[in-house]
Amino acid sequence: MATNAARNTGILLIDCPDRKGLVAAIANFLYSYNANILHADQHQDAELKLFLMRVEWDLDGFALDEAQLRAAFAPIAEQFQMRWRLEYSTVKTKMAIFVSKYDHCLVDVLYRYRSGEFNCDIPLVISNHPDVRPLVEFYGIPFHVIPVTADTKVEAERQQIDLLEQHNVDLIVLARYMQVLSGDFVAHYPGKVINVHHSFLPAFIGAKPYHQAFARGVKLIGATSHYVTEVLDAGPIIEQDVLRVSHRDSLQDLIDKGRDLERTVLSHAVKWHTEHRVLVYDKKTAIFI
Amino acid sequence: MATNAARNTGILLIDCPDRKGLVAAIANFLYSYNANILHADQHQDAELKLFLMRVEWDLDGFALDEAQLRAAFAPIAEQFQMRWRLEYSTVKTKMAIFVSKYDHCLVDVLYRYRSGEFNCDIPLVISNHPDVRPLVEFYGIPFHVIPVTADTKVEAERQQIDLLEQHNVDLIVLARYMQVLSGDFVAHYPGKVINVHHSFLPAFIGAKPYHQAFARGVKLIGATSHYVTEVLDAGPIIEQDVLRVSHRDSLQDLIDKGRDLERTVLSHAVKWHTEHRVLVYDKKTAIFI
Amino acid sequence: MATNAARNTGILLIDCPDRKGLVAAIANFLYSYNANILHADQHQDAELKLFLMRVEWDLDGFALDEAQLRAAFAPIAEQFQMRWRLEYSTVKTKMAIFVSKYDHCLVDVLYRYRSGEFNCDIPLVISNHPDVRPLVEFYGIPFHVIPVTADTKVEAERQQIDLLEQHNVDLIVLARYMQVLSGDFVAHYPGKVINVHHSFLPAFIGAKPYHQAFARGVKLIGATSHYVTEVLDAGPIIEQDVLRVSHRDSLQDLIDKGRDLERTVLSHAVKWHTEHRVLVYDKKTAIFI
Amino acid sequence: MATNAARNTGILLIDCPDRKGLVAAIANFLYSYNANILHADQHQDAELKLFLMRVEWDLDGFALDEAQLRAAFAPIAEQFQMRWRLEYSTVKTKMAIFVSKYDHCLVDVLYRYRSGEFNCDIPLVISNHPDVRPLVEFYGIPFHVIPVTADTKVEAERQQIDLLEQHNVDLIVLARYMQVLSGDFVAHYPGKVINVHHSFLPAFIGAKPYHQAFARGVKLIGATSHYVTEVLDAGPIIEQDVLRVSHRDSLQDLIDKGRDLERTVLSHAVKWHTEHRVLVYDKKTAIFI
Repeated sequence: MATNAARNTGILLIDCPDRKGLVAAIANFLYSYNANILHADQHQDAELKLFLMRVEWDLDGFALDEAQLRAAFAPIAEQFQMRWRLEYSTVKTKMAIFVSKYDHCLVDVLYRYRSGEFNCDIPLVISNHPDVRPLVEFYGIPFHVIPVTADTKVEAERQQIDLLEQHNVDLIVLARYMQVLSGDFVAHYPGKVINVHHSFLPAFIGAKPYHQAFARGVKLIGATSHYVTEVLDAGPIIEQDVLRVSHRDSLQDLIDKGRDLERTVLSHAVKWHTEHRVLVYDKKTAIFI
Repeated sequence: MATNAARNTGILLIDCPDRKGLVAAIANFLYSYNANILHADQHQDAELKLFLMRVEWDLDGFALDEAQLRAAFAPIAEQFQMRWRLEYSTVKTKMAIFVSKYDHCLVDVLYRYRSGEFNCDIPLVISNHPDVRPLVEFYGIPFHVIPVTADTKVEAERQQIDLLEQHNVDLIVLARYMQVLSGDFVAHYPGKVINVHHSFLPAFIGAKPYHQAFARGVKLIGATSHYVTEVLDAGPIIEQDVLRVSHRDSLQDLIDKGRDLERTVLSHAVKWHTEHRVLVYDKKTAIFI
Repeated sequence: MATNAARNTGILLIDCPDRKGLVAAIANFLYSYNANILHADQHQDAELKLFLMRVEWDLDGFALDEAQLRAAFAPIAEQFQMRWRLEYSTVKTKMAIFVSKYDHCLVDVLYRYRSGEFNCDIPLVISNHPDVRPLVEFYGIPFHVIPVTADTKVEAERQQIDLLEQHNVDLIVLARYMQVLSGDFVAHYPGKVINVHHSFLPAFIGAKPYHQAFARGVKLIGATSHYVTEVLDAGPIIEQDVLRVSHRDSLQDLIDKGRDLERTVLSHAVKWHTEHRVLVYDKKTAIFI
Repeated sequence: MATNAARNTGILLIDCPDRKGLVAAIANFLYSYNANILHADQHQDAELKLFLMRVEWDLDGFALDEAQLRAAFAPIAEQFQMRWRLEYSTVKTKMAIFVSKYDHCLVDVLYRYRSGEFNCDIPLVISNHPDVRPLVEFYGIPFHVIPVTADTKVEAERQQIDLLEQHNVDLIVLARYMQVLSGDFVAHYPGKVINVHHSFLPAFIGAKPYHQAFARGVKLIGATSHYVTEVLDAGPIIEQDVLRVSHRDSLQDLIDKGRDLERTVLSHAVKWHTEHRVLVYDKKTAIFI
């Protein structure tokens, strides 16, 4: 699962009803146009009778350009009733970050971005507060403050969407952004908004999950990254992780320790999304790693 | 945290409002009667302003027998408004196991018991089905079948309590016992019934937690051991653990993998309880390990 | 990765130099004989320029019996210079267990075997001590005592091999068997002997690894299951796991806690081997799960 | 184990031969001067017959200043043959960071420092390369480049020590500093240099541990933070952690994933050291958390 960074590859993500001959059809198609397959990963979901696949091949020597490939693959896709996406590793995701005051997730995402861990560009960071400006500008990224109140929310989201559209953003990462996005906003970016929630979902949905966890006396705390849908904290889960705590840990300890979890699960989600490893189906995700 | 098995020790478990001089008072008390402290572990809960302590000392050379110790310690306990328990490592917990048909937790508890991992005797195993009889009898433990239906539940619980009282049972372990105990039964054994629930509580309370977890698409499954209270799956948590799963895991895989989690979290709870390492306060547990 | 237990499937394990057209050739071959692929998992090792694959398909409706399949596949295998194995899920591995006095791994393997977690038969257990006889016979398995001393080792191993050959054993599991097998014995069963070593290899090779770990002051202890080769503790690693320890843990605590690790890593290895998920290459293993 | 940040506390770290009356003597001493104990944690090492203790108390209302406390405690320390240290949470550790070109540990330490996770000041960062200057200066910390070659090493270390002494540095953190410190340097700062090694020590000592791990085919990679002694990678271990890998991970994947491990184990070590939670004894550490 080496990084896409230096690659020139094509990626197909496919799901369809499971049928005989699917693998052969896809493999033959790619082989007939001289693809050198680097990774192929498929899964048959026996309960749903679904076939899921991610295949990545070297474009060096491959016979088709994008338009040709789309045209040539369409009949196969139709024959097998596929939902499919075609991605190119050289086309970087345009990612915006939304943030408020907590900067632990932001600092991690920015550092990994600059280190080349993510296959993306970050044309802008948007915040409802000015606090993180120096950090964002240290990484040379334009920073926009758009305050949000109950009264100005509709207008603020309109400004946000304007900015996102200007920059052709196709992924929004909520790095502890403390505002709930409206249903309208979410509908604008289906499957394109990633949030980190500071609990092991579906435990402790909503506000102050560490407080809830502390009151319940759990022995592990968690964090979850997921796609945002119109229902709060209910979207498809991308990654989760947990950390052991004990009666010795105060509420503040839970909050402090949890920051490390939040960073990790969010960064994994961003990495996998920008490498086109995530396939959403049946309100869940398949992660091809 | 070596096992109590070969020890001859006294154990005090204390909780009270935090005040200056508590540690000095307890340490002086024990020292004045020639105690050799093997372990002392205390915790100051800053939120609740509580002091929690477990201290274990060698009885070899200690000046007081049980009655003398209780008499001598009572004034100190009163002065500091302590809730306190005195335990002796040589007095083994009398533990009953309740089980139905699933035997993975049972086989683990019985094996560890025979290996000396638990500081307990097991005078009987009670089941609502006859299936696990050979296993129980292999370990030389009397086995009682008490069928339970909606109609016979009151009578069945009366029989169970009769048996438990005959054997002076002071701990009941529900090793995947598939009946919900009545409030009356639970009230009979407060803080003395340990259950294992096959989810990371408070996620997936109630029936079929693996089905719920599978439907939600979680990336980790969990198990929880806890004391049973009148509210289902809401008692103080003793231990939790999780295991990574992916889209490749079917519902059956979750059930299969989860068995290992259930065994571990239940066995830890039994070990700690029988070594008098668990102190319940504020609907939570402090585990002194 | 559901269990093979109820399946009627064929499994191909393949490794060869990586070349274009490999996946297409294999997929076409299977499709042309009406295979319904249940799982296919391949890996391209970029460093070694190797292609590794495991494919499993439903035999229901498949056109070829074993002899026909071997004959039909041979030319493809030759064309691509494949090393390959064909397995059938209905042909259970014949597994022998070697054990001494410690029975924690044995009890776990036997329980999982009886629960159907392993796709194997266990025709016999061999020990150099009589201690575990009752446990083995509880599970209805013939038990053989073959004492081993420095003087009798050659003769003892001859007896062991005689018994193994009588029962057509094709997997030997060393469940904390405290004798080092001779090079001759190992050469008899290449890639067919699985051992569990009670450390995180390659740390703490050889005798008394918990003592070594305790002296070094490590913060995690480990266990490793691996194939046995002529070099002590140097064979291909199948599975490893670790557990956190602290200065509070005595040497005996390390030994006690380590038992749970040893059971887990050994059982995983047995499960994966008997489901034909392990492919050895370049002194390592690929585990197709 | 809440942070020291906002505290005004005294801390005693003690080790001595285990004897009756130790806890009572220490608790009485503190109580007699009106200490409010916030945390007390002791451990009896049965093998070595050692008593280890960390006790932390609120200085608010405490009767003694530092000189008085040292004078008053000395006779008790002598009576029980204690090695002891007295620390004050308001006296921050003066910490220098040594770094080369890899900046993943540096960026994590600097962020946590600025967030108040560490109870320290960082008067300077020293590197043998200029690369990380912008990052260090973003955090407002003086940055010194001291190139090191085989020929200039003695002189370079003299310059380093001059700088460290000018700033009264009492902790040196090697955040992937790629030069081996001389025995002379190490002797200057005994128990005051923390290194992170990118393996699970004692596996893969020395150069290129990820290469070694990859060649061996391990299923987990690790990282270790430890005090530096004159023997390479053999000093007392402070923290270790591991991460699961598989045959799918290339050597580069191991390096990439390992970075997260290195950051975590180093940051834990720095946090614990600067909160005076680490006690070195018998070539190991006790971590009082």
